[in-house]
Amino acid sequence: MFSQPIASLRRDGNDLVVLDQTRLPWRAVERRLATLEDVAEAIFAMRVRGAPLIGCVAAFGVAVALAGGKGDDAALDHALAVLCATRPTAVNLAWALNRMDTHLRPLPPDARCEAAWIEAEAIRAEDAAMCAAIGAHGLELLRALHVREGRALRVMTHCNAGWLATAGMGTALAPVYAACAEGLEVEVFVSETRPRNQGLLTAWELAAAGIKHTLMADNAAGLLLMRGEADAVIVGADRIAANGDTANKVGTYLKALAAHAAGVPFYVAAPMSTFDPGTTCGEAIPIEERTADELFFVDGLNETGCPGRLRLAPEGTRAANPAFDVTPAALVSGFITERGVFRVEELAGFLRDFRT
Amino acid sequence: MFSQPIASLRRDGNDLVVLDQTRLPWRAVERRLATLEDVAEAIFAMRVRGAPLIGCVAAFGVAVALAGGKGDDAALDHALAVLCATRPTAVNLAWALNRMDTHLRPLPPDARCEAAWIEAEAIRAEDAAMCAAIGAHGLELLRALHVREGRALRVMTHCNAGWLATAGMGTALAPVYAACAEGLEVEVFVSETRPRNQGLLTAWELAAAGIKHTLMADNAAGLLLMRGEADAVIVGADRIAANGDTANKVGTYLKALAAHAAGVPFYVAAPMSTFDPGTTCGEAIPIEERTADELFFVDGLNETGCPGRLRLAPEGTRAANPAFDVTPAALVSGFITERGVFRVEELAGFLRDFRT
Repeated sequence: MFSQPIASLRRDGNDLVVLDQTRLPWRAVERRLATLEDVAEAIFAMRVRGAPLIGCVAAFGVAVALAGGKGDDAALDHALAVLCATRPTAVNLAWALNRMDTHLRPLPPDARCEAAWIEAEAIRAEDAAMCAAIGAHGLELLRALHVREGRALRVMTHCNAGWLATAGMGTALAPVYAACAEGLEVEVFVSETRPRNQGLLTAWELAAAGIKHTLMADNAAGLLLMRGEADAVIVGADRIAANGDTANKVGTYLKALAAHAAGVPFYVAAPMSTFDPGTTCGEAIPIEERTADELFFVDGLNETGCPGRLRLAPEGTRAANPAFDVTPAALVSGFITERGVFRVEELAGFLRDFRT
Repeated sequence: MFSQPIASLRRDGNDLVVLDQTRLPWRAVERRLATLEDVAEAIFAMRVRGAPLIGCVAAFGVAVALAGGKGDDAALDHALAVLCATRPTAVNLAWALNRMDTHLRPLPPDARCEAAWIEAEAIRAEDAAMCAAIGAHGLELLRALHVREGRALRVMTHCNAGWLATAGMGTALAPVYAACAEGLEVEVFVSETRPRNQGLLTAWELAAAGIKHTLMADNAAGLLLMRGEADAVIVGADRIAANGDTANKVGTYLKALAAHAAGVPFYVAAPMSTFDPGTTCGEAIPIEERTADELFFVDGLNETGCPGRLRLAPEGTRAANPAFDVTPAALVSGFITERGVFRVEELAGFLRDFRT
């Protein structure tokens, strides 16, 4: 059974305590969230990140908000509105808040606070179980590769879709954790993931879990795959269209192209909630364009070990900074979900069964 | 006629003055090289970089070395040995020093110094002419694209293969400069080029030349090409095998894959000296593995506008850092050389004609 090296979130009395991801990978600092405003700020400022984790934190945020007051409709409405406004594009956020509303609204005000803690805990437990199921299904794939290769497996990933991004063992990294828990030897190639450098979070979380890993520039993926230095690529997903086209962190598509050219399997690991039957294909997925400052500035530790920020780009330069790209379904070897692994050809039937 | 906004190198009396590229893209600072040791340090410390420029600076370094002394065999031998040891893998360095030796050795010692300045100037002029010829041939390609599209052309490049890397208008960027000089509207997508961030040098040199450009993360290349936002990709090369497989800065291969998938032409611009008939194919090209510190640390400007360095990666992480990758010949639409543009199928005949 996987347990997070440090809890990505935990309840402490009437407070929520989260691992402050803006301080990672340099410092593991917990942050106590004692008010609705604390919780909202933590989501907005990306102290917690990753769609599943954001949903969990928002659910607990409702409990934190109601703990200090009367739990009447006005308080509930206010909490939901404030939390929903933090990051309106994260699907899990709206989903979790809607679930809290549905559950709490029929209850008498003085029963809502305790019920909120219980429901938030249920959401968290379900998220952890979803991760574990993805891990178990992905493990079968890795075990098959492992038997075939007869040596330590090398998995390449992109961005951070591990335990830091969820309340459990992650999505893309869940099969790796499941494999290591079984005693399979697995190493991970971690792509830096410019411009936000989430690969550094992945390196940190793998180190915290005792998993051997190698950091690389995003640019190195092509050569390493061409040379046969990775046995599989596993990435997460932000949205999967009805035809299997997959939106994920920008740079994912380049790895999919290189994996395809090298004959290396390329897997997308994501919960069923990531599939969007209402979006027919990749072209219909809106791609968020983010600020140029993500390219122009970089954060790190200075010589004295203190957080610092440097300007990278010369003045007067402009930037294109799409946050995601789209990997065509034809490049995806399989989708690893909590319901099992399936190929693109199986997608339509799978989604139909899931909804009925 | 293209003229460098700031000379990448120039003679001043008996000194050589170079643009110190370790201070770019934040400060344009010239550095005076008055002794053999000054010149050797400038090459070793990458104050000058780019194979063509290194060759030119080394040639002038011989003149600088002989200017203060007697010009006898011992002085000549010493200068050649010191300069050759700075960066032994750069092909142009050895080539330029060998040419200086061949030219100066037969001369009487007291005639060698002045002859060295003249021969170095000849090498520099030939390099600039080579760049101009690449620009002229590449211009034909861009003109054809321009007519077809009927709007501003958008060229994507990788790393820095512009005027900063040569004594002229560059290699990969030469067609862009030639096109702009003709009044064609051209914009450039500049890839950051992790881990050494040479894309920032490219952004700076394009700004200095007044050319519109957009910086992007290396990861963004796939989406931009898929969306049809670039009309052509032009890159330089470090070594081209007999079959056309091309070694260039790591990340080039991923752009070639994405360009191929999108039906966007992918050109390699390089002088004939980059072709290596002795290397049969890409697998035979040795790939330099560089220090992990290039990934772990980053240089930039701090809040007070002073140069600074930050640590990016957590302690205890290891890295894979290949400096180059290999783009299979099948992904190259054409090679732009000083002798003209040719396709992979024409390569064998072209190389045979060139050597005879």
